[in-house]
Amino acid sequence: MKRIPIFVIAAAMAVSIGGAMTLSAGGADYESSLIFGGKIPEGYRDWRLISVAHEEGSLNDIRAILGNDVAIKAYREGKLPFPDGTIIARLAWSYVASEENNKAFGRPQSFVAGAPTNVQFMVKDSRKYASTGGWGFAQFNDGKPTDMVVQDCFSCHVPVKARDFVFTRYSP
Amino acid sequence: MKRIPIFVIAAAMAVSIGGAMTLSAGGADYESSLIFGGKIPEGYRDWRLISVAHEEGSLNDIRAILGNDVAIKAYREGKLPFPDGTIIARLAWSYVASEENNKAFGRPQSFVAGAPTNVQFMVKDSRKYASTGGWGFAQFNDGKPTDMVVQDCFSCHVPVKARDFVFTRYSP
Repeated sequence: MKRIPIFVIAAAMAVSIGGAMTLSAGGADYESSLIFGGKIPEGYRDWRLISVAHEEGSLNDIRAILGNDVAIKAYREGKLPFPDGTIIARLAWSYVASEENNKAFGRPQSFVAGAPTNVQFMVKDSRKYASTGGWGFAQFNDGKPTDMVVQDCFSCHVPVKARDFVFTRYSP
Repeated sequence: MKRIPIFVIAAAMAVSIGGAMTLSAGGADYESSLIFGGKIPEGYRDWRLISVAHEEGSLNDIRAILGNDVAIKAYREGKLPFPDGTIIARLAWSYVASEENNKAFGRPQSFVAGAPTNVQFMVKDSRKYASTGGWGFAQFNDGKPTDMVVQDCFSCHVPVKARDFVFTRYSP
C-alpha cells in the first residue's frame, strides 16, 4: 500500500470539513497570521525611515525598515520595550546592479532597488501576542497576506530578546 | 627652480587677499556651495523614502534617499522636471556585516548601516541654479557643510538629464 503523508490527509480533511483549504502549516496559527485583518497597513509607505540593509544569498535584496510614529518615537528615545501600537515595516526590493550609476562613477560599484519582493511587519500588542514576546508578524506579497506562521517568525527574533526582539537599530 | 603648482599659488593669493583661505576649487562656486545658508535642512531625517542603494569601492556605504513633500509628490505623479522647492536627501552610512543577523540566518549574508558618513542634498531652484540644470548641491559631514563645488556635482548628473538630472528612481 502506498503511504500517504499525514499532512495530505489533514489537508483533505480541511477541504472536506471547511469547504475551502487553507495553506497554513498550523490551524491555530493561521488566524494570528492574518494580523491587520489580512489588510496591509494603510499609509505604511509614508512612514519614516529607521534604517537600511542588504541581504545576500537566496534573499538577494536591498531593504528599508520604516516605522510608524509610535515606533520612531520609541527608537529616538531609546526606550524598551516598544509600546503597544508600535509597527515596524520591512520593505524589500530585488538587488540590482546599476549600469547607469556605474558609468557615472566610472567603475562597477553601484547597486540599487529593483522590483519589490515583499513587505513584512511587526506589530506590538502585548496582550494579543503575549506568546510571541508581544509581537505579531505578517508578510505581504503584492499587497496580499501570506500564510506565515507567527511562531516561526518569532523564533528567529529570540536572539535579540534584549532589544525587545527587534533586530534593526536606528540609523541617525 | 622648484616648480610650484599653480593651485598653491592661487591658494596663497586667496589667503593674502581675503585674509582667510577657502578650500574651494573656484571662488565663484564657493558661495553657491553654501546652499541652505550653510545649514543642514531642518527635519530632513523625517522625510519620506524614495529608495535605497549600496555603493562598493572607496565609498563602501549603504544609503537611503529621502525626499521632502514636493519631491515625493513629483516622484509619485511621475512628473518631470521636478518643481522648484524639491529637495532630495541622500543619507549614507558605512556598510557593515552584521554578525548578529548572520547568526539568525545561519549564514553570512547580512549587511547593515553603521556610522553615518555624510548627507548630500539636491535642491531645485530653476533661477538660482540655472547654470546647473536648476539644481543646487550640498554635502554635510557631521552636520557641517563641505566645500563641494556645485559644478562638479552637476557634471556627474548630466548623463541622466532625461530624468531631470536625478539618478534615483522611486521604489514602490
